[in-house]
Amino acid sequence: MNSLDRQQIIKDLVVKTDSKIVLLVMDGLGDLPKDGKTPLQAAYKPNMDALAKESDLGQSVPVLQGVTPGSGPGHLSLFGYDSLKYDIGRGILEALGLGIRVDKKDVVARGNFATIKDGIIVDRRAGRPSSEESKKIVEILSQNIKKIEDVDITFYPGKEHRFVVKFTGESLFDEVTDADPQREGQPMEWAKATNPDSEKMANIVNKLIKEIGEVLKDQPKMNFALLRGFSKHPLLPSFEENYKLKAAAIATYPMYKGLAKLVGMDVLEAGQTTEDEVKTLKKVWNEYDFFYFHVKKTDSYGEDGNFEEKVKVIENTDKAVKEILSLNPDVLIITGDHSTPALLKAHSWHPVPVLIHSKYVRKGLSVSFDEYECAKGTLGTISALDIMPLALANALKLEKYGA
Amino acid sequence: MNSLDRQQIIKDLVVKTDSKIVLLVMDGLGDLPKDGKTPLQAAYKPNMDALAKESDLGQSVPVLQGVTPGSGPGHLSLFGYDSLKYDIGRGILEALGLGIRVDKKDVVARGNFATIKDGIIVDRRAGRPSSEESKKIVEILSQNIKKIEDVDITFYPGKEHRFVVKFTGESLFDEVTDADPQREGQPMEWAKATNPDSEKMANIVNKLIKEIGEVLKDQPKMNFALLRGFSKHPLLPSFEENYKLKAAAIATYPMYKGLAKLVGMDVLEAGQTTEDEVKTLKKVWNEYDFFYFHVKKTDSYGEDGNFEEKVKVIENTDKAVKEILSLNPDVLIITGDHSTPALLKAHSWHPVPVLIHSKYVRKGLSVSFDEYECAKGTLGTISALDIMPLALANALKLEKYGA
Repeated sequence: MNSLDRQQIIKDLVVKTDSKIVLLVMDGLGDLPKDGKTPLQAAYKPNMDALAKESDLGQSVPVLQGVTPGSGPGHLSLFGYDSLKYDIGRGILEALGLGIRVDKKDVVARGNFATIKDGIIVDRRAGRPSSEESKKIVEILSQNIKKIEDVDITFYPGKEHRFVVKFTGESLFDEVTDADPQREGQPMEWAKATNPDSEKMANIVNKLIKEIGEVLKDQPKMNFALLRGFSKHPLLPSFEENYKLKAAAIATYPMYKGLAKLVGMDVLEAGQTTEDEVKTLKKVWNEYDFFYFHVKKTDSYGEDGNFEEKVKVIENTDKAVKEILSLNPDVLIITGDHSTPALLKAHSWHPVPVLIHSKYVRKGLSVSFDEYECAKGTLGTISALDIMPLALANALKLEKYGA
Repeated sequence: MNSLDRQQIIKDLVVKTDSKIVLLVMDGLGDLPKDGKTPLQAAYKPNMDALAKESDLGQSVPVLQGVTPGSGPGHLSLFGYDSLKYDIGRGILEALGLGIRVDKKDVVARGNFATIKDGIIVDRRAGRPSSEESKKIVEILSQNIKKIEDVDITFYPGKEHRFVVKFTGESLFDEVTDADPQREGQPMEWAKATNPDSEKMANIVNKLIKEIGEVLKDQPKMNFALLRGFSKHPLLPSFEENYKLKAAAIATYPMYKGLAKLVGMDVLEAGQTTEDEVKTLKKVWNEYDFFYFHVKKTDSYGEDGNFEEKVKVIENTDKAVKEILSLNPDVLIITGDHSTPALLKAHSWHPVPVLIHSKYVRKGLSVSFDEYECAKGTLGTISALDIMPLALANALKLEKYGA
């Protein structure tokens, strides 16, 4: 089945009701065993385990079996948007990660500082400068380049050799090839429009790069820039359109706020800690019927390979679960956007634990919330795209399909 | 999702590394219980069972739930090629099964000897001759018909009433309908081109059939031929293109060598026994990064309804597993291309046990390798098309999808 058809079917069936759904996403939740236990198994989490007995458990595949998703595809799947169909540019994801506001008139691109010598790109990462060094160069560019023709240019510093450029103006489209030879020892590959509408954009991009080269020509290493992943704000149908849900996002990191915004959620001020997020949730409980509640640190410690701290984040989140349950949501889902095993120190392809709690779950098969109980739970192995339909169903927001 | 997109996504993510993957295919492995145990459960297989404790287990669906695959679709799925998308003609599969070499200029077709009387096909299988009787007729044809116009004709004997014809020449295409009325008591249905390019081919086919009728006119039963499943060598992207893998096929039967060749594997001389195949594997271990290792006899004994001998083949393969593990592959997958239950004496639709071993498996849920442990394993129920992506992921050959 075409996944746009799937979204259409759900859209046709959904009805507005008073019931409330909480989607608690513990980023990078899934893991691998260390000394026979995963962080979820090692954590003391009485609330989640008690809930597991009263819930449907399963494991979800974010994109495809074997495919390791970035946070973008992982979250879009959770929200019910097939990342294989909705082509979300790398530029927009990078911009969202940096908390950059992207509007309809903007095109964003990822930049690399690079080293050019006699017309040859000799280092695509300019010797991997520190983020501080690179930030200084971004400041120089910001002072010297504000416009190319009628297009406003804004630079944003990123990590190490990376930065983001935002182009703001009329008639800017993103069907432009990467201005990047991809390999070192090659001459520059300039941007080309792949659609006549994007010719203005390609022209602006190449002029900008030449001007960057001029401004930076005396820098020892960061004397050039490569730009790629040109992307406009993608026009995703909103949660309101798709699901008739008034949705709030409670997240502490820019990337996740940005992803929630892409699907039209109201992004709330949520402080820095899970406790702050719980406070926000309680404050706005009566104003929304869907709450995306994001816990970042499970992923961060997974990426650090810090098993013990990941356990502690789960234990801390368990306390939030008690608070969330005290609000009596009609549906509570606890899951992750992907796995981030401490052993791999990176995102991975492993299926993600999912728990769905409502009055209408089959339950009875699982005694705790972890990868193994989920692998053999009542839900089975599902696509992450199934999670929103299941949430809506459990909230009694979906009408019968067919007579 | 379109499954060609899936292949494109994997292709875009794959990177070349030194890690090595072994895909051990026990043909027709899946089975049904007899006196409460399947052959996998009845077999003494300490190596596979020890490995199961350290692996992810699941069950795979070769094509679709309920669909019994032939060896062609079963293997293509294992190799990550969707047999519903890649239309591999029956002629080519029959030819591969007989070990016939098919080149780019060739079209092959499956033939039936038939009985015609007064222009009516009275028996589509010519009274089901023995393979020996049929082979003699093929020899007569080979002596009498070598060319139709500028097209070289080669006949190959098959089982009972079946044979294969290979057409070799310029401008031959395979968009030709079956030259077969499909039912008895009907006049002959001649081949028709479904595309103007294939008109030469349709013409050659019909001339050939008339000439066969002429040569065989005095035979008592095998006095005519029907030809169907016209097919050229399909242009499948190779393992090298799709997966950046240098792949070796170690198999003892022509069908499997042919299937491996279709996807661009190097087909190695592998002798007749599993022990011979292990020797070959060891000899070429340093030269490849993917090894398709095929064990035929599990299927053969399944088709004979010989439960006990199927058990013995599994026990013998268990020794090979020990040898394979001694080479320290980064990923070892043990599975089948389909089920061949001894009870059914035929291929079947039942899901197939899969075991994936690497450093990065979740493991811990399964204590032995059999249909039941696989049904409740950490992998869940997957498509056979998921196996190659999972193999590549476990070999750390896939980059992250999206930021």
